[in-house]
Amino acid sequence: MAGERVTSNDVARLAGVSQSAVSRYYSTGNLVSTKAGEKIKQAAEQLGYRPNVLARSLITGRSRMIGLVVAYLENYFYPEVVERLSKALQDQGYHVLVFISSPASVVENVDQITQEILDYQVDGIVLASATMSSELAARCHAHGVPIVLFNRLQDDPRLSTVTSDNHGGGRKLAELLVSLGHERFGYIAGYEGASTQRDREAGFREGLEASGHRLFAREVGNFRYDEAQAAARRMFTGPERPDAVFVCNDHMAFAVMDVLRYELGLRIPDDVSVVGFDDVPPARWPAYSLTTFRQDVDDMVAETLRTLMESVNGAGGVPRRVVLDGFLVQRATTRRAPTSAT
Amino acid sequence: MAGERVTSNDVARLAGVSQSAVSRYYSTGNLVSTKAGEKIKQAAEQLGYRPNVLARSLITGRSRMIGLVVAYLENYFYPEVVERLSKALQDQGYHVLVFISSPASVVENVDQITQEILDYQVDGIVLASATMSSELAARCHAHGVPIVLFNRLQDDPRLSTVTSDNHGGGRKLAELLVSLGHERFGYIAGYEGASTQRDREAGFREGLEASGHRLFAREVGNFRYDEAQAAARRMFTGPERPDAVFVCNDHMAFAVMDVLRYELGLRIPDDVSVVGFDDVPPARWPAYSLTTFRQDVDDMVAETLRTLMESVNGAGGVPRRVVLDGFLVQRATTRRAPTSAT
Repeated sequence: MAGERVTSNDVARLAGVSQSAVSRYYSTGNLVSTKAGEKIKQAAEQLGYRPNVLARSLITGRSRMIGLVVAYLENYFYPEVVERLSKALQDQGYHVLVFISSPASVVENVDQITQEILDYQVDGIVLASATMSSELAARCHAHGVPIVLFNRLQDDPRLSTVTSDNHGGGRKLAELLVSLGHERFGYIAGYEGASTQRDREAGFREGLEASGHRLFAREVGNFRYDEAQAAARRMFTGPERPDAVFVCNDHMAFAVMDVLRYELGLRIPDDVSVVGFDDVPPARWPAYSLTTFRQDVDDMVAETLRTLMESVNGAGGVPRRVVLDGFLVQRATTRRAPTSAT
Repeated sequence: MAGERVTSNDVARLAGVSQSAVSRYYSTGNLVSTKAGEKIKQAAEQLGYRPNVLARSLITGRSRMIGLVVAYLENYFYPEVVERLSKALQDQGYHVLVFISSPASVVENVDQITQEILDYQVDGIVLASATMSSELAARCHAHGVPIVLFNRLQDDPRLSTVTSDNHGGGRKLAELLVSLGHERFGYIAGYEGASTQRDREAGFREGLEASGHRLFAREVGNFRYDEAQAAARRMFTGPERPDAVFVCNDHMAFAVMDVLRYELGLRIPDDVSVVGFDDVPPARWPAYSLTTFRQDVDDMVAETLRTLMESVNGAGGVPRRVVLDGFLVQRATTRRAPTSAT
């Protein structure tokens, strides 16, 4: 390729200052006189000089990169997370190094991927939608690399986590469906290894049981559109079908709605109420207009960043476990309440 | 934070080899005996040693990072791009450093963001859905950092580009709608500064004119869901409305369909045919089942990678301009053909 790298010596020569002044200017920002700084800045612009961030990071021990592991970009909750987390980090002078782990083999992949992330000397790691072995948590801890689990709980007390209230959300959805007079409750589960799946289901069951009800049917959709379609076919083609179904996330709920309407000819909500979890953008589109439990991506990203930056800056030694409130969004896939629901 | 960094000296001591052997092992892979290599590997695992990628990259001049600039993650074409490009790069030992530019001020942002990317010493840049000033192209060129424009054309001959056949796709959609017997053709444009928008519209107009037709109505949706809704309202509430509409991408086509069906009570395709561009996953969902022109993300990512890696490895000095075929996917939003369409 064309072009030679412009060095700090070139800048020093043009600016008429010493190389060490240029070096000081870029490593500390202001340990040179204003006049010298101005000359250096002009010379650098003229030559197209860029201070070597990598070299600087070797000295400061900071790469100004955060590793982000995501698994399910086909679930439209996660593109929002990637975008907002990246933007928020950019505002603080950090950037996101993305690692995609495949949903099929989350556990094994994350081990390998995290090792790769560590090799890049990232200042911190955000694990979104992935589990992580205790061994690796220990390794990251030993290397002083802070980790935040995004919407994923783990028992290891050394790990910080930021989740929405998955258990409370599941419970509120059960209470809503009960208040609407439903009697046969279906549940379509996500990937069984995920804490979001476990917590949402536990909350939903608890909410049903609190009013003397119980689950009528259960299938697994693994957070995938096609598997959720198959789950809906199994659940709704028998002689007795649920009159309400909680689908563990919106992405799968769209698949379930499409099967109910366009394959089985059922009306939503007249024949069956459908509720989801997340409130991704298509849930607001009139084609779906889905009643769901909203996770606030902005709040979750802000808390993740706060937790991460406290650790990166050495302020927070104690892992944080943040659980954020979400709220019910009632749209057109659930019946109107016979009496006003709380 | 806890933990001390394990050094190559620690590994050498435990493995019973020299520090330079450890260094050689990690910088070249195999310039030590198999037996010594095995000892080093075991010692490194036991101690949790990671070779310092940053230090190595200073020596080799490779950061093994590719900067990716994306603007529109709310258009579900781009999460697929991010995911597949990241995965493909991971397979080659590279990783993606993400930079989000906001759609509202694409041009200014990209200048600033590209400077930031250069500061990270990336080995290459993929600009997806963003324009770029000639000055910056020159700067990257001078620094020897290869750039590939992803689905975005620019006149600067120094820039490699990978696009799908936006012009040909627009033309084929016009030919399809003409063949179905339509007579009043609407077009809802994307962001006017984008080459995808310009090329798709030019192809569509050309296709209409080739059979003696012309555009009946035109509105701008700026690639945004809400602006596309407003555009559809303006286009379809007058006394005379189009009987077919090409919406410049699928994301906006969903918004247009939702307005036609749920606000204006029009039937698709009985009252109006709708076609889009991209073939994002929701286009296949039965709620939309959208006729569209498919851009093959896998092919586009593969060509982007090939172009980039040739430049990174110094093989390709000449910029490449790759235009990939796409194809029509006819689904339920267009009438059946009166005679068989080609």
